[in-house]
Amino acid sequence: MRLVSVDLDGDERPGAVVAGPDGVDRVLDLVAVTGVATLAELLADDVALAAARTAAGRADVGDLPPLADVQLAPPVRPAIILCLGYNYLGHTEAGLGQEPYPNVFIKTPNVIGAPGAPVVMPRAATEVDYEGEIAVVIGTTAKNVDEADAMAHVAGYTLFNDVSDRGWQNRASQWALGKSIDGFGPLGPWIVTADEVPDLAGRQMEVEREGVVTVRASTDAMVYGVAFLVHYLSQIITLRPGDLISTGTPARAPEVQALHLPLTHGETVTVRVTGLGELTTTFVSAERL
Amino acid sequence: MRLVSVDLDGDERPGAVVAGPDGVDRVLDLVAVTGVATLAELLADDVALAAARTAAGRADVGDLPPLADVQLAPPVRPAIILCLGYNYLGHTEAGLGQEPYPNVFIKTPNVIGAPGAPVVMPRAATEVDYEGEIAVVIGTTAKNVDEADAMAHVAGYTLFNDVSDRGWQNRASQWALGKSIDGFGPLGPWIVTADEVPDLAGRQMEVEREGVVTVRASTDAMVYGVAFLVHYLSQIITLRPGDLISTGTPARAPEVQALHLPLTHGETVTVRVTGLGELTTTFVSAERL
Repeated sequence: MRLVSVDLDGDERPGAVVAGPDGVDRVLDLVAVTGVATLAELLADDVALAAARTAAGRADVGDLPPLADVQLAPPVRPAIILCLGYNYLGHTEAGLGQEPYPNVFIKTPNVIGAPGAPVVMPRAATEVDYEGEIAVVIGTTAKNVDEADAMAHVAGYTLFNDVSDRGWQNRASQWALGKSIDGFGPLGPWIVTADEVPDLAGRQMEVEREGVVTVRASTDAMVYGVAFLVHYLSQIITLRPGDLISTGTPARAPEVQALHLPLTHGETVTVRVTGLGELTTTFVSAERL
Repeated sequence: MRLVSVDLDGDERPGAVVAGPDGVDRVLDLVAVTGVATLAELLADDVALAAARTAAGRADVGDLPPLADVQLAPPVRPAIILCLGYNYLGHTEAGLGQEPYPNVFIKTPNVIGAPGAPVVMPRAATEVDYEGEIAVVIGTTAKNVDEADAMAHVAGYTLFNDVSDRGWQNRASQWALGKSIDGFGPLGPWIVTADEVPDLAGRQMEVEREGVVTVRASTDAMVYGVAFLVHYLSQIITLRPGDLISTGTPARAPEVQALHLPLTHGETVTVRVTGLGELTTTFVSAERL
């Protein structure tokens, strides 16, 4: 099931995306059928999820609004966003090699942006860059969970653009500020529930900048997998429904990296992963608004 | 004015601490006199703050419960906690010297603990350490503010123990996990409002471990000051009421550092700053609970 959060004049309601026989994605509102007000609550509630699944299966698709006509909110609004650095073989961001433990950094909650919403590059930004990633959405509270039990706490997966300002990121040893600029984390468009993703392996990720593919990688190159990460992190941080673990970005090909320049006003980046959809973001300069 | 958040069976209400003629601190509930439900809302509301000040000045102190009998909550529950590394001259945590920009890291919101509540060191913890700091509490939303206007966005100051697990902190280049363990951020006991703190300069900080002073420093050794930090950060992150900027810890004296060992079950650490009060925390091992 694909779950979205629909923005109805600021009221964020859970919805299911249902493909009609015409191939057009439409959105079923889930508030009435589940009795649950937000997508984060829905993710933590197995009974409501089952009701949503049944209703989505039975929906009279022709009556539903097309997804393209619906204003989406970010699927969740996490309090905690933990991101992996160097988590694909071959990714040598900042020139470092593989490390013996996951290299985890934090993005603050102000980064989260709705799918399709532009990212505004502030005046103080210096070198804005994109990182296409798969984000794990926590479904139920995870504290001290074993690796074998970890997947039961995963609600599903969505796409994340770990937008980064390389200038701010590299001003000091800690990357925090370059990673936490307002809106520097477009998320979505939907959460694919974990029952439809038994394993992240064997998926293709592509990142396209202005129509040119700059990253092409298989999730098989992921170093630390989802179950391990949930276990590892939950030893010290209680993960709650809606919290995110973003699994890191694959490297750009060296010949692409050699030509890489910071993002400029009007450029568009799409992150695309087999079975998880695609997330397109336009970057705009605050000076031009 | 000293403002606290009182925990009444999970309901967190704003209160003012008022010293009686007997020298005993007592707590005035501010919900009725201000019409505001939480301390974070109160901090953002000048009219309510003025009403609180008037009520605190007129309170019949003898009728109020002693502070010692009141259960305190953390004064605020920030969504964003930005912390400074290396922000006192002479502090060479991790052996690094002074950097050309503030070295800012993030702690996740799960760290925040009530004043007086114990810090539980989880089983996975390896080398737990304390860092006494002064935290700036944001009062009104700050985005792109000039240094000259920055102080208008500061509600006040409180004490923070930036508890850190050095083992986790140093597993990778990013300190995030060692800084973000559940409960590793005791905060309080109160917020001293900014009108009573025209300047942080000239204050003495002492940190005491098991009755032995291990840190003694003047705030005059602070590198980046409050107005600059609010300005600097607000260029890229919208700071909201209740958000925290923790201004960093002074170094332990070299002879103290040479004998330093990780915290063990039952040890107590007190952070004390002139005019801002003191914050005492007991550390307990999860294994011993």
